[in-house]
Amino acid sequence: MADTHLERRRANFAPLTPLSFLPRSADVYPDRLALVYGARRYTWRRVYERCRRLASALTAHGVQRGDTVTIIAANTPELFEAHFGIPMAGAVLNTVNTRLDAETIAYILEHGEAKVLLTDSQFSPRVKEALAQLGRDDLLVVDIVDELAALAPGEGERLGPLTYEEFLAKGDPAAEWAPPADEWDTIALNYTSGTSGRPKGVLYHHRGSYLMSFGTIAGWGLPPHPTYLYTVPMFHCNGWGHAWTMTALAGTVICCRYITAENIFNAVADYRVDHFGGAPVVLSMLINAPEEERREISHPVKVMTAGAPPPAAVLEKTKALGFDVMQVYGLTETYGHVVQCAWQDDWDALDFGAQAEKAACQGVRFPMTEEVRVIDQESGEAVPRDGETLGEIVIRGNTVMKGYHKGAKATEEVFADGWFHSGDLAVVHGDGYLQVKDRLKDIIISGGENISSVEVESVLYRHPAVAAAAVVARPDEKWGETPCAFIELKPGQSAEEAEVIAFSRQHLAGFKAPKRVVFQELPKTSTGKIEKFKLRQAARDL
Amino acid sequence: MADTHLERRRANFAPLTPLSFLPRSADVYPDRLALVYGARRYTWRRVYERCRRLASALTAHGVQRGDTVTIIAANTPELFEAHFGIPMAGAVLNTVNTRLDAETIAYILEHGEAKVLLTDSQFSPRVKEALAQLGRDDLLVVDIVDELAALAPGEGERLGPLTYEEFLAKGDPAAEWAPPADEWDTIALNYTSGTSGRPKGVLYHHRGSYLMSFGTIAGWGLPPHPTYLYTVPMFHCNGWGHAWTMTALAGTVICCRYITAENIFNAVADYRVDHFGGAPVVLSMLINAPEEERREISHPVKVMTAGAPPPAAVLEKTKALGFDVMQVYGLTETYGHVVQCAWQDDWDALDFGAQAEKAACQGVRFPMTEEVRVIDQESGEAVPRDGETLGEIVIRGNTVMKGYHKGAKATEEVFADGWFHSGDLAVVHGDGYLQVKDRLKDIIISGGENISSVEVESVLYRHPAVAAAAVVARPDEKWGETPCAFIELKPGQSAEEAEVIAFSRQHLAGFKAPKRVVFQELPKTSTGKIEKFKLRQAARDL
Repeated sequence: MADTHLERRRANFAPLTPLSFLPRSADVYPDRLALVYGARRYTWRRVYERCRRLASALTAHGVQRGDTVTIIAANTPELFEAHFGIPMAGAVLNTVNTRLDAETIAYILEHGEAKVLLTDSQFSPRVKEALAQLGRDDLLVVDIVDELAALAPGEGERLGPLTYEEFLAKGDPAAEWAPPADEWDTIALNYTSGTSGRPKGVLYHHRGSYLMSFGTIAGWGLPPHPTYLYTVPMFHCNGWGHAWTMTALAGTVICCRYITAENIFNAVADYRVDHFGGAPVVLSMLINAPEEERREISHPVKVMTAGAPPPAAVLEKTKALGFDVMQVYGLTETYGHVVQCAWQDDWDALDFGAQAEKAACQGVRFPMTEEVRVIDQESGEAVPRDGETLGEIVIRGNTVMKGYHKGAKATEEVFADGWFHSGDLAVVHGDGYLQVKDRLKDIIISGGENISSVEVESVLYRHPAVAAAAVVARPDEKWGETPCAFIELKPGQSAEEAEVIAFSRQHLAGFKAPKRVVFQELPKTSTGKIEKFKLRQAARDL
Repeated sequence: MADTHLERRRANFAPLTPLSFLPRSADVYPDRLALVYGARRYTWRRVYERCRRLASALTAHGVQRGDTVTIIAANTPELFEAHFGIPMAGAVLNTVNTRLDAETIAYILEHGEAKVLLTDSQFSPRVKEALAQLGRDDLLVVDIVDELAALAPGEGERLGPLTYEEFLAKGDPAAEWAPPADEWDTIALNYTSGTSGRPKGVLYHHRGSYLMSFGTIAGWGLPPHPTYLYTVPMFHCNGWGHAWTMTALAGTVICCRYITAENIFNAVADYRVDHFGGAPVVLSMLINAPEEERREISHPVKVMTAGAPPPAAVLEKTKALGFDVMQVYGLTETYGHVVQCAWQDDWDALDFGAQAEKAACQGVRFPMTEEVRVIDQESGEAVPRDGETLGEIVIRGNTVMKGYHKGAKATEEVFADGWFHSGDLAVVHGDGYLQVKDRLKDIIISGGENISSVEVESVLYRHPAVAAAAVVARPDEKWGETPCAFIELKPGQSAEEAEVIAFSRQHLAGFKAPKRVVFQELPKTSTGKIEKFKLRQAARDL
């Protein structure tokens, strides 16, 4: 049937790009509220104008197709706009974790070859030091000055010749712009937080980010015009792609600079937020919030959680707040979530605790995800659906990264055998739902037995005094390794090491119970992941 | 940034195809009800097994990649399964309008080079004649025998060696199958109903049907697991793509062989159908149904209507039944709907009549539609948003056909200047919503003035005795053409020509009022479109 008149042409082929969502929402819903931040209110028409200003100002400065533009910012309108304005100029959006140290920021600016840096002035001390280390005169620095930033001494210094608003003023709100020539063109460069060594630069293409949006809408059941509270940092997997997804639906995005229980409760109540996302640590923050920080929520709220396997107890308590939590799983390399704990009708009949156990699974693939398997690492075969056999999660589909920037070797390794290898260990239950048990490197091998640190943690979370728990391997002459628990207690609560160990032994095989328990605040990354590498070091030093 | 390690590979690139939705729904929701037809109930696991049987039976028969498999069937499970089983064999799904005459059926089998014909035995008289005209011994004919078919004398004859169920029995329910090698590969061949001349064979690619599903979910706000009543013929634009869309959402599809008000009301009430689609003639059928055929509907029901511009009065009355109607617009060449009357918040404050006027617009582009314009045919420029200036609707995007099968010349014509030219005339209102006024060839030119037949019809629909109205051009020595109205009266109602003309002149400029009015039943296609070519002939013969 092939015939030359049936080839792709302008009328019937357009490169897939999430940028296409913005002109549509600006055309169809020009006066609808798009962004809310403090007293700032932008409609979709206005957002599009501001993004065109940004794109044209970048182009006027000399930014070319394929150049990198870096942004270090909190979840403010500027970071949202960067998700459109930068790629509308043909450039690659490089968001940076705001908590990184100066040396790593300098490394990213160098490795990513940034042509322009947009930087929130709250982070000026570390960014200034990074720029000094970088020593590049040609890098244009634009300061995002946010009057809602709570500046500490030394913060707030201007590092460049222009503020973001001055830069926008140089742009044209009606500027023409071109979509990518190829849907495989890079839209974003996201550095992994990498617990050791240099971060890796993960490249996303326009096609993937477009499909991520549609797959999320279908998989999460997003309605038209959600009101979305942006608690997930947009520098993390582009905020799970929701900047683009919410634009596809002409939703209203409530920006949130400081993630506190009070701010979340207030935003949900005041703006009738119906969707938000957050790591389990954010859920813990909500369920442990003191009474005076809480607000009564009477409307339905859906919450997507990811980043670490949340204990069933946390899910159960969050649901009791009136929040409908769906756990998802993914990595920076998969644009964020590619697996979801899709609800099954027959779970309705289960009791609360059994439902929470179900919901503690990461689940099954999203609609845009081609295939997910848990494989035996030796044979490459899928593990049995027995809820016990550990294997590595491997993924393939259109929301898997292009590869690592300047990282041919690492790319080939992670893409071995036609799959993306996640490095995460999981079991598959009888219903086909996978459950993450650990990072490959987080597994504890004690006397030849594998111990899942997540399993031990989930028991510790059931202890009434425990606010947060992390279990790591501690070297042991006899057993090789033994589990060592680090525990953050609830305010006003106390516990004894021996009592916690005894509690664990009631619920776990003896060899899985922690041999040591340390009570302290847990070190966390900005995205709420507990920094286990620090705890592993601490365990070694005990 | 280009680098060879960043090229497409199996881990990060999968050709887009709606076929991918079926294994996911069968994996994740194996026991969920997928298809209901009479006493038949198939889960998603079962549907997938039956589709794999069909695909493998076709392959075993010798069907190769790119071959055409034709199906002439009512909206039964077999036609649904064909949407997966045929392309899973690598073949092209060719659905045929069941009301076509034998000669046209023979033409389609010949032109499409069908290798296998699946045919519902109710249509055996015309299909038998078509096969005789075709005279091909090598065509395998498989009879779909439906015990729910109400057979007239002569119908129900078996034309081939096997029934559909016997054919499935030869297949393997666990057969392996391969997705398309290229997402541009053809998934379907749909012949236009063509009011004159030979029908044209419209080719869809896998990419377009995949994006059609996701765009429909986002644009129509479809939730997970809708219960969808299939009243739209699946032979028409693949039933607006919903066979694939409902599979993406693991919905429940209620098949419906005979479209009557009673069947629709019963299905909606008994199965709690929450979504269905239908041409305006279906809506008219519902609002004009006698009391004894109605059922009380207390749950929300969303209805997509398309196929002809529905009069505001029809929309208003359908809404009064409790059905939330959204009008959409599209053509066979655009996979069905690409424009939707997206609701605006500020319409909530309008009165019922004003809302219906708004809802009578076809509207704005769907999320997956790249661009829609209404252009002046001479200049090619967009017409002003004045609600008055007529122009042609042109469309571009990923849900525009590949082109016409064996129709290079017609393809080049319809794709002139980088757009698909719809041949439909519309105005654009101040809010950017387009409203279809007529087919190019349906416009009446009287004394040099353009008269929109749709405008005249919408006035006639307001007349209390009118059930349906169609206005066409009648040759006139003095004026060139004048409007001639054909009117179907409501049961038990009567009207006079002079009185209807006077009624029209109260609501229209004098030159737009019909000069002649004829009372008769209106000829309609199977999809509810009024066959204006027959009326134009009748008008000439008056």
